[in-house]
Amino acid sequence: WAPIVVEGVMQLERTYTFKNFRLALAFTNRVGELAEAEGHHPEITTEWGKVRVRWWTHAINGLHKNDFICAAKTDALSRD
Amino acid sequence: WAPIVVEGVMQLERTYTFKNFRLALAFTNRVGELAEAEGHHPEITTEWGKVRVRWWTHAINGLHKNDFICAAKTDALSRD
Repeated sequence: WAPIVVEGVMQLERTYTFKNFRLALAFTNRVGELAEAEGHHPEITTEWGKVRVRWWTHAINGLHKNDFICAAKTDALSRD
Repeated sequence: WAPIVVEGVMQLERTYTFKNFRLALAFTNRVGELAEAEGHHPEITTEWGKVRVRWWTHAINGLHKNDFICAAKTDALSRD
């Protein structure tokens, strides 16, 4: 995960790669299930063969401990 | 749809809004089905309550007639 700044807001970003679009979209859905379970929602960008995930906390316009936890959980999904 | 330029590449971009994350993700999946059916894949960015879609043609680093057709088909999905 790389810390990035988007319009003044610190975020955690990571891009995962896949063999095709379908696998990328399947991962997007798994991250979506995680987001709903956590009640915390990232930005998920799906393209052919890749998914970019960005976690941050809107309420504080930056990073909260929970973002790091969700980033780790996203990694765990990618390893399943 | 707005024409935008991302890293020198002309793209068609539109953002759709939804009442929650689940509806946004459902639309992402419908755009994904369209992409697979067309054999042409956009960038789809899913967030809580919104989905941003960008169509362009990698092979020509820009816009092809097909991108405009896919943009119109994306709109049709959003109206269903």
